[in-house]
Amino acid sequence: MINKLIAKIMKRNAPIVVGLDPMMKFVPEHIRKAAFAEYGETLEGAAEAIWQYNKGIVDAIYDLVPAVKPQIAMYEQFGIPGLAAFKKTVDYCKEKDLVVIGDVKRGDIGSTSEAYAVGHLGKVHIGSNEVYSLNEDFATVNPYLGSDGVKPFLKVCAREHKGIFVLVKTSNPSSGELQDRLVKDGTGEKPLYEILGNMVAAWAEEYMPEQGDYSYVGAVVGATYPEQGKILRDIMPKSFILVPGYGAQGGKGADLVHFFDKDGLGAIVNSSRGIIAAYQQEQYAHFGSQCYADASRAAVLAMRQDIATALGTL
Amino acid sequence: MINKLIAKIMKRNAPIVVGLDPMMKFVPEHIRKAAFAEYGETLEGAAEAIWQYNKGIVDAIYDLVPAVKPQIAMYEQFGIPGLAAFKKTVDYCKEKDLVVIGDVKRGDIGSTSEAYAVGHLGKVHIGSNEVYSLNEDFATVNPYLGSDGVKPFLKVCAREHKGIFVLVKTSNPSSGELQDRLVKDGTGEKPLYEILGNMVAAWAEEYMPEQGDYSYVGAVVGATYPEQGKILRDIMPKSFILVPGYGAQGGKGADLVHFFDKDGLGAIVNSSRGIIAAYQQEQYAHFGSQCYADASRAAVLAMRQDIATALGTL
Repeated sequence: MINKLIAKIMKRNAPIVVGLDPMMKFVPEHIRKAAFAEYGETLEGAAEAIWQYNKGIVDAIYDLVPAVKPQIAMYEQFGIPGLAAFKKTVDYCKEKDLVVIGDVKRGDIGSTSEAYAVGHLGKVHIGSNEVYSLNEDFATVNPYLGSDGVKPFLKVCAREHKGIFVLVKTSNPSSGELQDRLVKDGTGEKPLYEILGNMVAAWAEEYMPEQGDYSYVGAVVGATYPEQGKILRDIMPKSFILVPGYGAQGGKGADLVHFFDKDGLGAIVNSSRGIIAAYQQEQYAHFGSQCYADASRAAVLAMRQDIATALGTL
Repeated sequence: MINKLIAKIMKRNAPIVVGLDPMMKFVPEHIRKAAFAEYGETLEGAAEAIWQYNKGIVDAIYDLVPAVKPQIAMYEQFGIPGLAAFKKTVDYCKEKDLVVIGDVKRGDIGSTSEAYAVGHLGKVHIGSNEVYSLNEDFATVNPYLGSDGVKPFLKVCAREHKGIFVLVKTSNPSSGELQDRLVKDGTGEKPLYEILGNMVAAWAEEYMPEQGDYSYVGAVVGATYPEQGKILRDIMPKSFILVPGYGAQGGKGADLVHFFDKDGLGAIVNSSRGIIAAYQQEQYAHFGSQCYADASRAAVLAMRQDIATALGTL
């Protein structure tokens, strides 16, 4: 799946993933109204609204980008109907041949992580049957519990040729509270994210596809921390980096160069509200809320241009 | 809700939470057969099996314990039907007046954690409506992203009088890989779990119910690490400690004393497979798989005795 992702990035000249994080305040009024008319202002109504909203965006951008990244929290908040909209979105995006990165940030003790791993990426055993469940292509993984919590994902990745992105240095303002702490390492000291970077590098080395330069094991490093991105790019040469924080969170195209390798590969940059709620920005307001998906398409094109300019791959 | 939990612990003389982590290999054959006969060996069949299994256990133990802790991964692996079984379990346990701790280990950047917080503990806005969604009483929270990712949960807890348990020192063998790292702190150095302990203590101090000694903000500290439990009990005087790792993971009654305060409160000990799969252990095998729930009841009684002996609260 990492090789499919890379091939699609090259074909589209777009190391871009669109974050499908449908907050209700982003959903245009006409979609909300129609959904509430059918299901009421209920969890079902909210789920229908975000699904219709997503579908419009996916239809407008699937030929431009290699991948989407639905953030499961935005669906999970609406309970079982919301999670059903997540699954519908995953399946629809796969029909459109998009690579689907489930932004689930799961991680637990070994036996529990195994359940997450088979549920999100692999097959679950039911009686004598093996069944794909949520079936994303990639998942994000929280490593706070150590290797016990990551290894079940690695095994499923090897079996299914899928991938994970391990949280190493997240994009949010407080990420440094733990991740930047200087920790003892042999005779010297290092920030915790470098320790994590070394762990990811070792897993990446061990879990390589038969062909290709990049591993099943990638890392999340925020666009908002370009200096750390540069260090981590060097520490994890086999790991693709998923880069959140571009756009609304403050990351700019010029900040991104350090996340990429010399061939302009090795990273994929996420934008969520910058794309999916583009119509609410001044720059794209002329599209209007009815044509929100066209605004999203224009925002993808602008992002592609911004990154290509920064990387010199125009 | 923390006060309700404490009152129920005292009433039952049982600082015990039963982990409802229904792995398929625990579900007795007669339940699996009936579920598969109705729904096939499908996600729906698996979900029905774990729901019926849970219901049997809850009916057998609800008068003995104050709380249950469903581990969402065990449901999520079976996709939307599995998550519907999670919700059904949460609702059923609340009907039985059990306190429900959702073991979800969620945590993300601020806006995303907010969605998890309202979805699991609070109310979501849908149009002009406010709706409870998954509606657990407590949730476990992963703090790896720093305070940004925890604060939305704190706000919801204050509003709803619910609670969280922040992962501080987890029970699994590899928890030390990050959590035990010695980090610089002022002029000295401390293990990372102590840094976390201090953060939890500060949040706990800030988020207290109007009455009572314990905060809305608790911590997870594994029974498998009694020495660290002792240190963390001192660092976090206002925080209830959720203690996993008793029983199957190796923690014993005698290890638990340090997690409690001088009144025998301040901690609640989880056992999952030790209770729910008791019938598969030699000691309770005579119950047979048909009477698996009676075996669970016997295991709860034995656990209550073990802890009371250790605490001297017989």
